Amino acid sequence: MPVYSISHVENVRVCVVMVGLPARGKSLISQKIVRYLSWLSIKSKCFNVGNYRREVAKEAAVDANFFDPKNEEGLAYRRQAIDLAIKDMMNWFVEDNGVVGILDATNSTRERRDRILKLCRENYIEPMFLESWCDDKELILQNITDVKTTSPDYVTKPNEFAMTDFLKRIEHYESVYETMDAATDSDLTFVKLVNVNSQIILNRIETYLESRIVYYVMNLHIKPRSIWLSRHGESEFNLTGQIGGDADLSERGWKYAKKLPELVLKSLGEEHQHTNLTVWTSTLKRTQQTASFLPYKKLQWKALDELDAGECDGMTYEEIEKTFPEDFKARDDNKYEYRYRGGESYRDIVIRLEPIIMELERQENILIITHQAVLRCLYAYFMNVPQEESPWMSIPLHTLIKLEPRAYSTLVSRLKADIPAVSTYKEKGTSQLGEAKTGETIFKSRDLLNSGDVV
Amino acid sequence: MPVYSISHVENVRVCVVMVGLPARGKSLISQKIVRYLSWLSIKSKCFNVGNYRREVAKEAAVDANFFDPKNEEGLAYRRQAIDLAIKDMMNWFVEDNGVVGILDATNSTRERRDRILKLCRENYIEPMFLESWCDDKELILQNITDVKTTSPDYVTKPNEFAMTDFLKRIEHYESVYETMDAATDSDLTFVKLVNVNSQIILNRIETYLESRIVYYVMNLHIKPRSIWLSRHGESEFNLTGQIGGDADLSERGWKYAKKLPELVLKSLGEEHQHTNLTVWTSTLKRTQQTASFLPYKKLQWKALDELDAGECDGMTYEEIEKTFPEDFKARDDNKYEYRYRGGESYRDIVIRLEPIIMELERQENILIITHQAVLRCLYAYFMNVPQEESPWMSIPLHTLIKLEPRAYSTLVSRLKADIPAVSTYKEKGTSQLGEAKTGETIFKSRDLLNSGDVV
Repeated sequence: MPVYSISHVENVRVCVVMVGLPARGKSLISQKIVRYLSWLSIKSKCFNVGNYRREVAKEAAVDANFFDPKNEEGLAYRRQAIDLAIKDMMNWFVEDNGVVGILDATNSTRERRDRILKLCRENYIEPMFLESWCDDKELILQNITDVKTTSPDYVTKPNEFAMTDFLKRIEHYESVYETMDAATDSDLTFVKLVNVNSQIILNRIETYLESRIVYYVMNLHIKPRSIWLSRHGESEFNLTGQIGGDADLSERGWKYAKKLPELVLKSLGEEHQHTNLTVWTSTLKRTQQTASFLPYKKLQWKALDELDAGECDGMTYEEIEKTFPEDFKARDDNKYEYRYRGGESYRDIVIRLEPIIMELERQENILIITHQAVLRCLYAYFMNVPQEESPWMSIPLHTLIKLEPRAYSTLVSRLKADIPAVSTYKEKGTSQLGEAKTGETIFKSRDLLNSGDVV
Repeated sequence: MPVYSISHVENVRVCVVMVGLPARGKSLISQKIVRYLSWLSIKSKCFNVGNYRREVAKEAAVDANFFDPKNEEGLAYRRQAIDLAIKDMMNWFVEDNGVVGILDATNSTRERRDRILKLCRENYIEPMFLESWCDDKELILQNITDVKTTSPDYVTKPNEFAMTDFLKRIEHYESVYETMDAATDSDLTFVKLVNVNSQIILNRIETYLESRIVYYVMNLHIKPRSIWLSRHGESEFNLTGQIGGDADLSERGWKYAKKLPELVLKSLGEEHQHTNLTVWTSTLKRTQQTASFLPYKKLQWKALDELDAGECDGMTYEEIEKTFPEDFKARDDNKYEYRYRGGESYRDIVIRLEPIIMELERQENILIITHQAVLRCLYAYFMNVPQEESPWMSIPLHTLIKLEPRAYSTLVSRLKADIPAVSTYKEKGTSQLGEAKTGETIFKSRDLLNSGDVV
């Protein structure tokens, strides 16, 4: 019998229908929702109608004229594109047991939205419209700059052409655009975001899934900021190969703690030495000791504590393999789902980290000092790492990771403190019996292997 | 160093200024917010201006004429009342370190709201207006019925007078009422609920606390429903006096499981035998075994697992007292905050139960089978039990508790299965050494002592 997280109570499928003029952040919001829900194991997918349009119209859609509402050929292509996207989405709901599909398009007119509504209802999908409405010139300009440098429509075009053409395209959409309206659309389930989230109108939000999506979107901001992640310094338990516990730092761990303030300043760069940031740690000694030389505000979170190994707390992998050989194998087979006897699984950590993610979305510069499994889950959220891979990522000790969220991606950089530490990485399918318990081993992992800076 | 739950990140004080005509559910919403935040250890208090008005105006406010906007004497009293309420609230923020104060009044005009706004800003309090706007005749009538039977203004008056007079009072307010408006009030932080929550307008919701309050209010509904709570049947560990673990039910525990379907039907009453309900259990065997004969849909929640006793898991209280005498005493001194070595405190449980409470607010009929400490925390939420008392409540085995949320209170009834069980209750300040570990003892607890049906 499966264990339910808060997200599985209802048997509901939702189609989030984006609404908004070009350069209103629709794709950004769509992609963030998909990333968030996927991280929570809610099967989600974004269907970008622009991609379908490029596929069907090919060379016909070279400039803004294509989007003139009087251009019959353009209209036909655009209708074909949205029909294909909806068809694929409906297939995905059925064949892949999709839960939340996002239709990323302008969906500017009531006529278009009514068509989608009808299709959803025929297929027993709950439609939720999500409009991003914006009249803040500065915000729009910033979005246009993002789009014209990243959109497949413009990457090969000269910068000046892109700007003029894109503005003309927006004008074409504006000429027919019908915003969502609490009076006219009072029967629909919709969210209207006005200038990011300075005002939000919610209409008939009824299911839990809808309310989760709304709450997430409510908490997003677009101010530039960075998030730093670090494991605690090497601990006494790391030296003996024991897992769990509440050990103190080793001598080398203390060295890392002392070096950390310098690493943070280096990572901030010369112009940002006085940037304000907040340090979050777990409630365990090794993270607090690691934070102890940092001259910033600090908060402790129980939710950042390491994965609870239950009956195996304090044991080495070797002892676990000897004492519970079947568990050892079961964990290797499905590390994400495996729950230690009386302890936790990676899935359990993700559930308790959800409020942390929500708070991280709200905050600006945060440095998190936590533990291997927790850090893997946080990293998986920001970098969209699939569940089956995230528990196997190698996150070395004595390394500061910096994440910089951008419009359509997150930049990662790593600063390695030149302080040796044991490796706590256990490769999938390996046995600890007959091998050295501690000491440097070669990492093999999806993530950090290619970065060239692993210990 | 204190451990932070999600709610303590900001150093913000909020005044929730209710706005709405009489009989729009303002007091109900205010009281629920206070109960929810208090349960999360966020210091909150409701200041009901009606109470101040009754205090200052005494016999002058006998009927609707008092509320006529042309009645100068009435106006003076009413202004005096709100001034007193605000003064008390500001004192409370300073002297009692209040975090969320709620000003429960109609606050019908912009002039009145501007005054409050000014006072808040002068005192560095964030004002958040929360309007309940309603034009659904049926909803209003239902609220009027609630108010006229519970309001101190009418309890001693004949029913018919109350109805006519109250309607007249509402008319007086309506003649000057100014609703919150996204255009006119665009600079304010406000939430406008239209017909409960069929439409919600959010304007400039910026702090985390505000967003939590909004999300909670968004999830409230007013459909009648019941919530049932039960501990698992007596377990093998209960017999030996051990805590934690994942033991099977004892023979008597199985008897309770078999009897439970009958108890539920009895509790539903004759007319509601076919009421649909859902059973929530923890992931531990003893709750699932207890649920096994119930013919309803079942869900397992990790968040409903028993308090993690860490290193003390599987020990008896006697063993804990012998092994960790200082911990045993520390737990007795502050049971809410005491965290078992490597385990949890009551505070930790409340944090992990928060999403469960949110989901419970959304759902209708739910039967929860869980564990002593978790049940205490759930019960404390619904019954507003103070933190220092909740860990000491006696919740006997083999007893089904039914909660029926009403407008201003929650009805509780208890059905005791006639199946003996050990008591697992340990009274504050008692030692287990030299006493029998198991067997019936006399309960002394705030809550169930007075109910007359304890085992």
